[in-house]
Amino acid sequence: MTLITKAATIGGGVIGAGWAARLLLNGIDVSIFDPDPEASRKVAEVMKGARRAYKQMATAGLPKEGKLTFAKSIAEAVSDADFIQESVPERLDLKHKVLAEIDLHAPANAIIGSSTSGIKPSDMQVAMTKHPERLVVGHPFNPVYLLPIVEVVGGAQTYPEAIEVAKEMYASIGMKPVMIRKEIEAFVGDRLLEAAWREALWLIKDGICSVEELDDIMRYGFGLRWAQMGMFQVYRVAGGEAGMRHFMAQFGPCLKWPWTKLMDVPEFNDELVDLIATQSDEQSDKWSIRELERIRDENLVGIMDVLSRTNKGKGWGAGALHKDYVKQLGKLAARKELSKAAAKAKAEKPKKKAAPVKARKK
Amino acid sequence: MTLITKAATIGGGVIGAGWAARLLLNGIDVSIFDPDPEASRKVAEVMKGARRAYKQMATAGLPKEGKLTFAKSIAEAVSDADFIQESVPERLDLKHKVLAEIDLHAPANAIIGSSTSGIKPSDMQVAMTKHPERLVVGHPFNPVYLLPIVEVVGGAQTYPEAIEVAKEMYASIGMKPVMIRKEIEAFVGDRLLEAAWREALWLIKDGICSVEELDDIMRYGFGLRWAQMGMFQVYRVAGGEAGMRHFMAQFGPCLKWPWTKLMDVPEFNDELVDLIATQSDEQSDKWSIRELERIRDENLVGIMDVLSRTNKGKGWGAGALHKDYVKQLGKLAARKELSKAAAKAKAEKPKKKAAPVKARKK
Repeated sequence: MTLITKAATIGGGVIGAGWAARLLLNGIDVSIFDPDPEASRKVAEVMKGARRAYKQMATAGLPKEGKLTFAKSIAEAVSDADFIQESVPERLDLKHKVLAEIDLHAPANAIIGSSTSGIKPSDMQVAMTKHPERLVVGHPFNPVYLLPIVEVVGGAQTYPEAIEVAKEMYASIGMKPVMIRKEIEAFVGDRLLEAAWREALWLIKDGICSVEELDDIMRYGFGLRWAQMGMFQVYRVAGGEAGMRHFMAQFGPCLKWPWTKLMDVPEFNDELVDLIATQSDEQSDKWSIRELERIRDENLVGIMDVLSRTNKGKGWGAGALHKDYVKQLGKLAARKELSKAAAKAKAEKPKKKAAPVKARKK
Repeated sequence: MTLITKAATIGGGVIGAGWAARLLLNGIDVSIFDPDPEASRKVAEVMKGARRAYKQMATAGLPKEGKLTFAKSIAEAVSDADFIQESVPERLDLKHKVLAEIDLHAPANAIIGSSTSGIKPSDMQVAMTKHPERLVVGHPFNPVYLLPIVEVVGGAQTYPEAIEVAKEMYASIGMKPVMIRKEIEAFVGDRLLEAAWREALWLIKDGICSVEELDDIMRYGFGLRWAQMGMFQVYRVAGGEAGMRHFMAQFGPCLKWPWTKLMDVPEFNDELVDLIATQSDEQSDKWSIRELERIRDENLVGIMDVLSRTNKGKGWGAGALHKDYVKQLGKLAARKELSKAAAKAKAEKPKKKAAPVKARKK
């Protein structure tokens, strides 16, 4: 079912551990490397959350979890992997060092994905001396084990075939790979997030609203639209029968109005950090981060689940994909049951051959 | 239950008709004025969609629908209303004309809300000669009958009491009023939308992605996060145990990176409109606008419904509010049944008094 037989994740932070969780819960063995002495505890916490979410989600059953190994070096982690995902901090020098090391020790046909939020693959693959042609950016969003999106983009040296295989690999673990057509810093998702984030910082700094009020305006308002249609399709509907052209003609002139402060960036100083951190405490310190993660994951699974049943039962957006993913996990689970049954049959009746099981497996 | 006994909506476009639908479905009589000869057909279409959505949503029943009247003038529409919502096109001269007319003919104690997306209330109320102190902006998001958010802000002449009453009125019809602390053009929601929209125009214009790919990156990605938590709470969780301060320290420097094109606005010309309209057709012309509206509404109700059951059954975000709203509509429905029963009892057994019913109504 999945194209990945053995995976390695380099970096065990929120993103790296999120990748490990998605892979393991798809039944794939994962070797992880992170020099942080706390890594195994941190990964275990992410796994705990991911297992709970998958249990809620996978009503048709879950595959036998893959085996997780903590490697002592990058070389050890990648030596027999056919898919390697790098998720180390966003410093170009560090990316160079880590990717060079991965490239040196990984099997020649392994695909290497980078979780970078903003660095161009061309700028990273220059450090790879053996096979830079198999590096792609595969930029996910947190929580990686639940959110299906992954932005895929290759660099100047990347082979188109490597991009194709990477896309298939990501899709095989329930993700939605979207190809970015040209390499730019921050790709697409983070450009939109950064634009909204800058404006949000102005709104808080200028005292127009609090962080809680801003969040409420999103989650009681347009966030509910974006979760299922995105920006352009929502505006198409808003244009009514006259459609997108009408909508654009109507709102085009706003671009010239003083509707954003985005010609400028707010000064990022301690005062602004304090203001936002304090308001964030007021909004959320009644929950621990773990509780918020649990609530977030429960909500995400719930939303994708409900969207898997709309549109005359065909599902819509992330829900349509979710429907297939749950089915796929269920099939892998059935295979696990079959293997168990076969093992049991073999153990109990050693004289009888396992032929019928084999036949069913075809 | 609701504070509004008789409402008027001025303007019967997508937003005005959306207000009328929400009010009518809450059992409130609405008088509407729109000079468009097609107004009654257009409003009927919005009502059809809204009725279908409320039927899906209101599992506990729906109140007896309010009575809709098409008035021949603003004066006629507002003469006996205690709540008036203005939703005419975004031209200051037109807003002045319409608000002056409303002010002249509305009862002195009526609250006047404006649906403007961007104009400051201080700039509008100068045209009101009688009672400018009862004007508030009540900025909703489409579809008004489903999305709960309404941004509330008063102008220089607005009385704080008027803002309080307006907030209570909006809340009484299932909405989530959020006060904007200072008057600025475009308030909060549209500033965030405008920031993302500008960046999106760049991404399409520069050929980085198509409108469908951009929408997919939202609806398979961060849109699912924003629908339930918003931006700041999501980032707080991303910061992990180290919290918001850590998150900001980590991502603060990005503000200085070339991650957005927002220092500039793309030239808004026919070429850009064509590019986006064509890609929008490719994405969506397999559905009519009516079908997309139906799918959107079904998804919105589904998401709010599922969020009404998470967080240990207490509901979360728009879901917690939705839970209360459905309950409220059910109570109003029960009252309707009670009235029907009373009427029937009276008709069938004229000798018997309706006392028991009255007693139950207490």
